[in-house]
Amino acid sequence: MKASIPQGTRDFSPLEMKRRTYMFSVLKKAFRLYGFDQIETPSFENASTLLGKYGDEGDRLIFKILNNGDFLKKADQQFLDEKNSKKLTKQICDRALRYDLTVPFARYVVQHRNDITMPFKRFQIQNVWRADRPQKGRYREFYQCDADVIGSTALQHEVELIQLYDAVFSEFNLLTVIKINNRKVLSAIAELANISDRLTEFTVILDKLDKIGKSGVVEQLNKNEFPTFAIQYIEKFLDLEGDNATMLSALSTLISDSEIGKKGLEELQEVVSQVEKFGLDSAKLQLDFTLARGLDYYTGT
Amino acid sequence: MKASIPQGTRDFSPLEMKRRTYMFSVLKKAFRLYGFDQIETPSFENASTLLGKYGDEGDRLIFKILNNGDFLKKADQQFLDEKNSKKLTKQICDRALRYDLTVPFARYVVQHRNDITMPFKRFQIQNVWRADRPQKGRYREFYQCDADVIGSTALQHEVELIQLYDAVFSEFNLLTVIKINNRKVLSAIAELANISDRLTEFTVILDKLDKIGKSGVVEQLNKNEFPTFAIQYIEKFLDLEGDNATMLSALSTLISDSEIGKKGLEELQEVVSQVEKFGLDSAKLQLDFTLARGLDYYTGT
Repeated sequence: MKASIPQGTRDFSPLEMKRRTYMFSVLKKAFRLYGFDQIETPSFENASTLLGKYGDEGDRLIFKILNNGDFLKKADQQFLDEKNSKKLTKQICDRALRYDLTVPFARYVVQHRNDITMPFKRFQIQNVWRADRPQKGRYREFYQCDADVIGSTALQHEVELIQLYDAVFSEFNLLTVIKINNRKVLSAIAELANISDRLTEFTVILDKLDKIGKSGVVEQLNKNEFPTFAIQYIEKFLDLEGDNATMLSALSTLISDSEIGKKGLEELQEVVSQVEKFGLDSAKLQLDFTLARGLDYYTGT
Repeated sequence: MKASIPQGTRDFSPLEMKRRTYMFSVLKKAFRLYGFDQIETPSFENASTLLGKYGDEGDRLIFKILNNGDFLKKADQQFLDEKNSKKLTKQICDRALRYDLTVPFARYVVQHRNDITMPFKRFQIQNVWRADRPQKGRYREFYQCDADVIGSTALQHEVELIQLYDAVFSEFNLLTVIKINNRKVLSAIAELANISDRLTEFTVILDKLDKIGKSGVVEQLNKNEFPTFAIQYIEKFLDLEGDNATMLSALSTLISDSEIGKKGLEELQEVVSQVEKFGLDSAKLQLDFTLARGLDYYTGT
């Protein structure tokens, strides 16, 4: 029998371990310096904790663990055919491997809420598993290194997180551009374009800007039958460029008619001003009003 | 919905993480000092790599991962009933979670044999998963910390491993007794008792000495119908006690008629002599000719 490992997984040899241990040590030192405490959660969670949190595609990519013993005893015999794989899975798999560190952390916070002092700053460096089709640079088992603050809306934490990224990437000698935006700005754009009811649809398209370019975004907006007025207004944001002062000034002109927009502008001004006051080692902070990642879980900046 | 984690798993809070990080750092430092290199293997292996390596009980306790997608397509419809859970498992689970670090390490060595310089001294600190019934102090996910030497029969490694245990337990301020035996001694006892064909059966009973006592072992040997002569000879070993010099002297008298016994005696003498020459910080090295753990994989001392 040939010795091999499952597709998408890796062995780490001594040299690779030394490199990774070094990288983790830089991260841990920076996390601790900025006041984050380490936690770890179990590799598998109750399937019900994970399923339904990452969309249909996520549900498919979660590794499920077969119940031990006579697992079929719990199964409804009528589901024992190919078409009912999904229903059968629910009956014979009570547990599933961690898909990211965010949902387990949310579960942790709820479960231990009486023992946690807010704001709670935690870091977590653990494996996650995804049943993605393996391809270059994409694995079925890989580490995530998360630092999160919960229980506070203070902008100070946003400033510190930017300083933290800068500290880590500077230590690695990696010149980095840190892009920031604020959900309130996106809400204001939607409000002023009169498409507030289609905020998610609009931002999903906007988020593709770096892949499909300005013309691609406009084309997609047209295809989805957004009103001409809305598209023209959105185009003004796609054209924006310049340093942070220029960007903030332009934003002020464009969204001063929106209350939530003004609030978002103020928050961004405050973060940029604080970061500039303390300075960064080597990273560059860059406002980008088209940045629209992680809309399901990011709330502010 | 109540936030909870699967039975037998644990969250590690910041305080618990600090304690464990400290313990791991002591282990890593000692492993490195003694020339071991760290490796990591994937959390899941091909099921075929793990199944059949830990006995029937082990096979039951291995966590299997359900194939993704339409897993039932690979299933033989006739196995879709309760009685055939085991056969169906093989068809719908190509992967399984690591049960220990030894079998994955063996697989690693075979797979990377062209890149490894022997002797290869590796350490590995990773989680293992077992579907054991959870009970006090027994979990379904826990860490193992292994240091192994392969590709050499030099007794020097046995001496260094004892020094390594001593270094770690001394650092933890844990007074420790390190018991050693040699498989050749057990083989010699079986040879001289004329039960060489029942070596494993005999040693499995012998290994229970600390649990069932001398009378329990004798009772069990009688129950399994070992010859009276054999039992009387074995009893002499159950009675042995004293310091290492006394024990070695007694062993010399008892097994000098066996070639393999003399070889085992020499090896133990050499290890004890070297350890005494260098000295231990706080651990005590104690010969125990009834020690019979891990017969499936230990080969010498």
